[in-house]
Amino acid sequence: MTAHPRLSLNQATIKYADLATALRITREAGIASIGLWREPVAEVGLAAAEKLVADSGLRVSSLCRGGFFTAVDPEQRRAALAENRRAITEAARLAAAGAPGSVPVLVLVAGGLPDGDRDLPAARERARDAIAALVDDAAAAGVTLAIEPMNPIYAADRGVISTLGQALDVAESFPAATVGVVIDTFHVWWDPQLTEQIERAGRGGRIASYQVCDWITPLPPDALLARGMMGDGHVDFPAVTRAISVAGYTGDIEVEIFNQEIWDADPALVAEQTAKAFEAHVGA
Amino acid sequence: MTAHPRLSLNQATIKYADLATALRITREAGIASIGLWREPVAEVGLAAAEKLVADSGLRVSSLCRGGFFTAVDPEQRRAALAENRRAITEAARLAAAGAPGSVPVLVLVAGGLPDGDRDLPAARERARDAIAALVDDAAAAGVTLAIEPMNPIYAADRGVISTLGQALDVAESFPAATVGVVIDTFHVWWDPQLTEQIERAGRGGRIASYQVCDWITPLPPDALLARGMMGDGHVDFPAVTRAISVAGYTGDIEVEIFNQEIWDADPALVAEQTAKAFEAHVGA
Repeated sequence: MTAHPRLSLNQATIKYADLATALRITREAGIASIGLWREPVAEVGLAAAEKLVADSGLRVSSLCRGGFFTAVDPEQRRAALAENRRAITEAARLAAAGAPGSVPVLVLVAGGLPDGDRDLPAARERARDAIAALVDDAAAAGVTLAIEPMNPIYAADRGVISTLGQALDVAESFPAATVGVVIDTFHVWWDPQLTEQIERAGRGGRIASYQVCDWITPLPPDALLARGMMGDGHVDFPAVTRAISVAGYTGDIEVEIFNQEIWDADPALVAEQTAKAFEAHVGA
Repeated sequence: MTAHPRLSLNQATIKYADLATALRITREAGIASIGLWREPVAEVGLAAAEKLVADSGLRVSSLCRGGFFTAVDPEQRRAALAENRRAITEAARLAAAGAPGSVPVLVLVAGGLPDGDRDLPAARERARDAIAALVDDAAAAGVTLAIEPMNPIYAADRGVISTLGQALDVAESFPAATVGVVIDTFHVWWDPQLTEQIERAGRGGRIASYQVCDWITPLPPDALLARGMMGDGHVDFPAVTRAISVAGYTGDIEVEIFNQEIWDADPALVAEQTAKAFEAHVGA
């Protein structure tokens, strides 16, 4: 069985599988690429993770995730930058360990408002400043920092960068090789400016990652897990995929789904389902 | 006890009170204005509602709600337009029955995607077309159709018009006296373009209503009821109120909160709490 050649399985979709299991399941489902997460990498250690990735023969399409840049406290800010520098190193090394076509892309989530803080513009400014502080390290490591605009549902508690346009406003202050954007259908599908902002991202060479998962209703009780398998919700994937193709992106397409039912299922079955849903709905 | 002179209590905040009770509670809380809903008006009939409103001495700041324009089926579309024409008449007559300063503003919610339909741009186009079909009726009745952009959390199932900028794009096709926008903090607080779009709305004379309620986290299990009393969440009300003042809006400010706990409380207490929270947090 071979899945779509551009499909990448993001580890978050099979959250409870450890790294070795995730790599094996991905390969056995005929999927050629994987999106890695820092936590399962840390569980085995970076050197062991590099070896596992190299042995798997899979491409690495991204490392999730850096970011969480919105603290006000100077000590917390320093700690966040140090953590992101470690993540940059990991992104570079894991991509180097992956099969040809792997990319050193570190996905960045801005972070939410600090407790009791209601100044959203200031939090957004701190996120921008943190990226500025990391750009030289990323460039030196050959890593692309990929800013992920998050659905406004998460603006308060997870990601203060809310639209693709806003992510591009930040990214465009820096070289395109070093700062790009992640376009995740769950986060951007509703945006009236989506097509024009995808075009803008393409023109600037800023599309570092394309991720898919569906927006389902009614929204499950835990909004953080409100994401669905492609086809189960309201997203017009072929339209988004077409816009991203027209914009010139030819890289891997990651399936990243946070959903308790999917997490509770057999990860090997999830990988197979993912490959099928990708073929049926994504339009790549 | 007298509440802030610009405060209006939207009936949705005390959802289980009938019209007579809502008017009495509002007046007894020292609140001078009320935002009405069509359902409690229909319960007593329009003529009786006019008399109740006139006797209350309260201003009417809006009528909720028209809209739901996104059906594809021609019969359903005709029915929606007919329903909205009735709502236009009601908005005009109830405002005429209210105290001086009442405004004939009909709040419009665009409606969501029809079942199984994923074409968001087409649904948005149908909403625009329906407003075009109603403009002459609204103008003849002296009513302002107020387009309410809704938080993207509702883009699939309730309101396909998602940002203030998009609402203004629609409104600006029509005369400012007849088509404006509702700015509701819950729906727009996260928008990176909020300040500039409020300025744009003010310049064009398009601000037909300003509504406040808070964005709370964690989001309650029912996302439709995820709204909080001002001060309980993340919205920077003084900043939004200031932008709206600078933009020239001097009308009533409605408190509209969909929240099961608030609905289950004694409505007279809710009205008092609302008046206090308004003073403490809204910055008007």
